[in-house]
Amino acid sequence: MLLLLEEIRHTPLLWLLVFVPALFAAEALTPEAHTLLFVLSVLAIVPLAALLSHATESVASKTGDTVGGLLNSTLGNLTELVIAVAALRAGQYTLVKASIAGAIVTNSLFMLGASFLLGGLRYHVQEYNRVSARLQAGLLFLATVALLIPSAVTAVDSASTTFVQAVSVGLALLLICAYGLGLVFSLKTHQELFGSSEHGEDGETPWPLPLALITLAVVTILVALVSEVFVESVQEAATAFGMTPAFVGFIVVALVGAAAEMASAFSGARKNRLDLSVGIALGSASQIALFVAPVLVLLSYVLGPTPMDLHFWPGAVVMIFIATMTAALLTNSGRSAWFVGVLFLMVYLIFAMTLYLLPPRVA
Amino acid sequence: MLLLLEEIRHTPLLWLLVFVPALFAAEALTPEAHTLLFVLSVLAIVPLAALLSHATESVASKTGDTVGGLLNSTLGNLTELVIAVAALRAGQYTLVKASIAGAIVTNSLFMLGASFLLGGLRYHVQEYNRVSARLQAGLLFLATVALLIPSAVTAVDSASTTFVQAVSVGLALLLICAYGLGLVFSLKTHQELFGSSEHGEDGETPWPLPLALITLAVVTILVALVSEVFVESVQEAATAFGMTPAFVGFIVVALVGAAAEMASAFSGARKNRLDLSVGIALGSASQIALFVAPVLVLLSYVLGPTPMDLHFWPGAVVMIFIATMTAALLTNSGRSAWFVGVLFLMVYLIFAMTLYLLPPRVA
Amino acid sequence: MLLLLEEIRHTPLLWLLVFVPALFAAEALTPEAHTLLFVLSVLAIVPLAALLSHATESVASKTGDTVGGLLNSTLGNLTELVIAVAALRAGQYTLVKASIAGAIVTNSLFMLGASFLLGGLRYHVQEYNRVSARLQAGLLFLATVALLIPSAVTAVDSASTTFVQAVSVGLALLLICAYGLGLVFSLKTHQELFGSSEHGEDGETPWPLPLALITLAVVTILVALVSEVFVESVQEAATAFGMTPAFVGFIVVALVGAAAEMASAFSGARKNRLDLSVGIALGSASQIALFVAPVLVLLSYVLGPTPMDLHFWPGAVVMIFIATMTAALLTNSGRSAWFVGVLFLMVYLIFAMTLYLLPPRVA
Repeated sequence: MLLLLEEIRHTPLLWLLVFVPALFAAEALTPEAHTLLFVLSVLAIVPLAALLSHATESVASKTGDTVGGLLNSTLGNLTELVIAVAALRAGQYTLVKASIAGAIVTNSLFMLGASFLLGGLRYHVQEYNRVSARLQAGLLFLATVALLIPSAVTAVDSASTTFVQAVSVGLALLLICAYGLGLVFSLKTHQELFGSSEHGEDGETPWPLPLALITLAVVTILVALVSEVFVESVQEAATAFGMTPAFVGFIVVALVGAAAEMASAFSGARKNRLDLSVGIALGSASQIALFVAPVLVLLSYVLGPTPMDLHFWPGAVVMIFIATMTAALLTNSGRSAWFVGVLFLMVYLIFAMTLYLLPPRVA
Repeated sequence: MLLLLEEIRHTPLLWLLVFVPALFAAEALTPEAHTLLFVLSVLAIVPLAALLSHATESVASKTGDTVGGLLNSTLGNLTELVIAVAALRAGQYTLVKASIAGAIVTNSLFMLGASFLLGGLRYHVQEYNRVSARLQAGLLFLATVALLIPSAVTAVDSASTTFVQAVSVGLALLLICAYGLGLVFSLKTHQELFGSSEHGEDGETPWPLPLALITLAVVTILVALVSEVFVESVQEAATAFGMTPAFVGFIVVALVGAAAEMASAFSGARKNRLDLSVGIALGSASQIALFVAPVLVLLSYVLGPTPMDLHFWPGAVVMIFIATMTAALLTNSGRSAWFVGVLFLMVYLIFAMTLYLLPPRVA
Repeated sequence: MLLLLEEIRHTPLLWLLVFVPALFAAEALTPEAHTLLFVLSVLAIVPLAALLSHATESVASKTGDTVGGLLNSTLGNLTELVIAVAALRAGQYTLVKASIAGAIVTNSLFMLGASFLLGGLRYHVQEYNRVSARLQAGLLFLATVALLIPSAVTAVDSASTTFVQAVSVGLALLLICAYGLGLVFSLKTHQELFGSSEHGEDGETPWPLPLALITLAVVTILVALVSEVFVESVQEAATAFGMTPAFVGFIVVALVGAAAEMASAFSGARKNRLDLSVGIALGSASQIALFVAPVLVLLSYVLGPTPMDLHFWPGAVVMIFIATMTAALLTNSGRSAWFVGVLFLMVYLIFAMTLYLLPPRVA
């Protein structure tokens, strides 16, 4: 406990934790002040995500390579999952889908691009393990195909709901299966190809196991509570800020959910440990595409008012496709310089600008 | 002749030849039992395709490198061609197109993926000649562009039939020309880049020339006769089995037509001769796309009730495009492990599942 | 001046300069003879473009590496820019867009493919700097995304003009910014990666600075005057020749505008200096996509009757996308043989044939 307080004192990011009680107070006092609640919930999620990420890594580091890798790979996007479950229970499927698509795009373009740029500003040319980048790009490509095909083979209007739902459940099972086999491949049968740089995770000292487990449980509950306020307030706040719903789901939610991982990825790039950055960015993107999204589809049968399908807005499918192509083409060489980062970020800026300007009714 | 009988006795696959007379008997006795005729014709085509393949290779091995390579490259997909001609004469253009698209997708995803998986389960990492894989992927890409462009530049409804037919004939001639130049490149001017592993073909002893030529002629006629029954019965059998026409054309016909080549490709992969597997799988896919399909378009002016064009169902074009991208991206490194095979097979499973669930009216 | 006359006497291409006065005479005498004026203006633009190109290079060679590279990169497509400005002032936005799309496609497919083919017919295998090819392919990919996204996220009919115009201006600024950063990268921070083969430019002796500057000024004015006749006559001439407007904009204008660069690229390939050819072809394509096109959008607010947007005909977007993918996939290895050129040219031929046969009303 003391260790936790110590860590909070030394990590400015965690000072934002003060906004967690502030949010709950504000919600009790002025439940209609959506814009205030939105801002407070964003500020509260960021430090909670950082704690969650540290707790997960601490548990992982105590449990041996394979189990630890498995934990990291399933709990690594717990924040995104908890936010999405909150939106799922509220029946806000458009927000869930926008945040899934946005998280894939944000991780594979913004997080990766900013890592390349930040690393490239300090080092002339950087190298990283391209076998690992290729595996993640391959998994992302598979997920893109899964999102693309149902839209491509059938016109939206004429497709019966039964067909779309049946395909979605089938795809969800296939993707989870591919994700599991990918873990077997990278953690078990061919782990020597993937380098060992993913351990040590940025020099942070791991917490003792009891503290890590308690933090994991408590913070997950807090994130769930904060997410509920966030989901309730996001639409009205967006209108107040003049942002389109597409922009909010795609950009704002995705950036908030991935804040903690970004801190790690950027710090890795600045220390010339680009393997770490590429692993976090692409690993996170493929985890959301092949694990979080399918799990949400299956959970929607239990938690949601109606089943959720994998039929995405065509614009989102195109953006995911382009993000995957960008990652596949630009990480092919295993070398990076600052301009590679600029190319990634420019593609992301094109998406963000288009979504920001998009008339509300379209998306 | 004795040699042929000897070979049949030692090859369990060829015992299926008993279904050839069984089929003709069944057709004479119960011409309305479509499901029975369908099953028998599938069982009869598989061993005939294997014989045809062996006969072609035997002729090729007697005629020197260049002519042999040429023969292999033009007669290698004789089974698919004969089945398609049977469907063409019956005016079943939807089936012809579905089986072309399906053969490209099945060869470049299922045959290649299963080879990588089977090889990868026995060998940790396998290498293959990536120059050859790149040439085939480049040819496939060209064919994909040819199928994509007419659909892309013109909306289906508003395009005049004259335009689509003129473009189709032009594209057919261009593709055959590209295919011929590709043969000149790989068999003549730059053959040293393509390795010599394609000869020896899996340790089978070639037949003497007269036996090979007679087998080639007789079996081609038998395949043609069986194909006619197959084409007549396939639609009604599909309905009986609860399969959509798209699924039958894309998956069932393609798997039946390529059964013999798959046996060779898989056996090559298990013997760590992945060059052979990649050559058969991608070579077969590009041959169908750049040679069989254009020849069918030109033949339709002679054999079919009306000219056939190259305007494919958009879903099929997307699947061919994705299959080509998958092959291009994943064969780029010239190395393979079991998980690469899983990625190919997962893309194929996504296609197969979507087509299986597709409501009949859409395709 | 004597030097200029000397050069004209030794360069057969420059003898075509005689068509410049011929064109002005014809325009004064028979202003309604559109077909004649069209042919004469084409014949007059080609030698002027060659002079312009030589003058630019001469100025560049006098000004040191960085400024020279900058000059080459901004004035290298001056001919295309002047032609497009003439069309812009006439309000012919369809022609402007078709010629932009056509220039990108022609440079990255025809110019590059013909270079590979011509080089490959003389040399067995050629190598070139693939870092440079990758940078250009990356820039082209970015431009393709910029052209693709506005069309993808919004249906053409329902998109408000305000949205399309706002996005277009934003994209134009982003692209120019990316282009500028790309110059900083290749000319300043990482110039060692890009080889030095771009200097020396094909053995031509540079002109003295005053002659070069005067030529630059005078020839630019002449090109502008000729372009105006060209733009006025092109549509009616096209009808007279039985060509569709899409074919004229995409193929004819693009080939005319790039004639001078093609001469350099082809001559580089024949001298086994493929770096030069790849640099000219892909550099020119990315310059048009990231500099000329955005500048035209911004200029349309000053010069045109109404603002021009970046919303292209879907068929053109698909062609640019395919051209970019072709360039990215086929230049990935840094090695070339004649068949690689054939693949590029075949893709180009598919485009040209489709556009030639396209019914006029579609595009």
